[in-house]
Amino acid sequence: MDRKTLEAHIASRKSLLCVGLDPVIDRLPEGISRDVNGVVEFCKQIIDATLEYCVAYKPNLAFFESLGPKGFEAFAKTRAHIPDTHFVIADAKRGDIGNTAKRYAEAFFNHFSCDALTVAPYMGRDSVEPFLVENNWAIVLGLTSNQGSEDFEQQKLVTGEFVWERVISQCVQWGTPENLMLVVGATKPEAIKRIRELAPQTFLLVPGIGAQGGDLEGVLKHGCIKGGGLLINSTRGIIYKSSGTDFAEAAASEAKSLRDQMAAWL
Amino acid sequence: MDRKTLEAHIASRKSLLCVGLDPVIDRLPEGISRDVNGVVEFCKQIIDATLEYCVAYKPNLAFFESLGPKGFEAFAKTRAHIPDTHFVIADAKRGDIGNTAKRYAEAFFNHFSCDALTVAPYMGRDSVEPFLVENNWAIVLGLTSNQGSEDFEQQKLVTGEFVWERVISQCVQWGTPENLMLVVGATKPEAIKRIRELAPQTFLLVPGIGAQGGDLEGVLKHGCIKGGGLLINSTRGIIYKSSGTDFAEAAASEAKSLRDQMAAWL
Repeated sequence: MDRKTLEAHIASRKSLLCVGLDPVIDRLPEGISRDVNGVVEFCKQIIDATLEYCVAYKPNLAFFESLGPKGFEAFAKTRAHIPDTHFVIADAKRGDIGNTAKRYAEAFFNHFSCDALTVAPYMGRDSVEPFLVENNWAIVLGLTSNQGSEDFEQQKLVTGEFVWERVISQCVQWGTPENLMLVVGATKPEAIKRIRELAPQTFLLVPGIGAQGGDLEGVLKHGCIKGGGLLINSTRGIIYKSSGTDFAEAAASEAKSLRDQMAAWL
Repeated sequence: MDRKTLEAHIASRKSLLCVGLDPVIDRLPEGISRDVNGVVEFCKQIIDATLEYCVAYKPNLAFFESLGPKGFEAFAKTRAHIPDTHFVIADAKRGDIGNTAKRYAEAFFNHFSCDALTVAPYMGRDSVEPFLVENNWAIVLGLTSNQGSEDFEQQKLVTGEFVWERVISQCVQWGTPENLMLVVGATKPEAIKRIRELAPQTFLLVPGIGAQGGDLEGVLKHGCIKGGGLLINSTRGIIYKSSGTDFAEAAASEAKSLRDQMAAWL
């Protein structure tokens, strides 16, 4: 999906919402079989219930991979259930170079037909460029909100930049606002202000709203640009809102509530 | 596999060799069907041919993932063909935190029974610790040999360290020489000298020997410690040595030649 189409969906649905799909067999709600078929059924029902309130889905590969080869079939079925009207992010945080990176791009962009893949930047330019292919997107880890972000991301370089600032300023040179996005944690809305200086036109994927305590208002205030410029992700707050048979309605209601707060800004 | 067992295999086989498995359908040799079954058959024959010369195998997940769900079955079958006498590294460069990282650990350590998983350090401590489980190993990217390593890894921090030096000095505090290894590119043997100061007891996984032009002699000289302390990987130089029906014999001969050079040091 290209940027123009993504922005058209944002405008028509008045939403920046991305729904994360982290299916855990032990947490599947009442009425869903606790097996790999249940994982697919759960994801399908969540997708059907939230379609009108969101513009993107972000299946997290770890939750499918932990089920082995059948988990990948479940991922393929889940992905196939998401219509063309929605942007699909494979949250796989791949990070490798050259031929290996090309194979990952092939896996997620061609085989699984995802629009975007999350990518780790540690190995530098040659770990990002293979994912910058037309009509697909690399979503590179910029500044994350976990405690460990202090260990390397928030270290200061002799140039005066933080490591994460250098990652962002380099990445926006390698890619364009049409094929590269950045991951920025929602618990650091002040940092989003700085990121907008470094990457004024780049879409930001912002996880951490809801269960992780991110500040939606702050993210919108500092991150929103013409056309949107944000994909704001919520996972557990939506998909595990209810563990009863009403889980899909509860997910819809939570997604609608987040969408309504976003609509006020758009 | 624990360190003691790995070191016993190194001693008895007089080898530090790790054989990388990057199967590409278009490069499968004569006599092997060019499909996912051929991928498994190719890997099995390479494994059978090289067993006595190596101590580890490193299947690269990208090459299996690019074949979709059937590729994961091929990975499972390939892994199952490697006997308990050999250390198995899933080269997947996963890098995520918390629950997600735990799922990746579950996928590779439990579901696929691998001994070790390569891990990207960008997100810090909470992206490494979930992989430090008993009798399994996190192999963290330290200093890689690709050109992009200049972009972030080789940047200097205000503390005077390079980013890669900080990554290494932190990682050896988080893990132990019994559950953490480091990836260090073979094209930088002088850097291995410095890495041995920071991580005197840590096993180093050194890719880049053979096709990528790494310097085996330099790696052994600066990296080898009591018990070995090195897993030296070669992929293309072994598995694609011949594209004819003699590919397995050619792989064996190349593996033997590398092993003989290593044996001289051990």
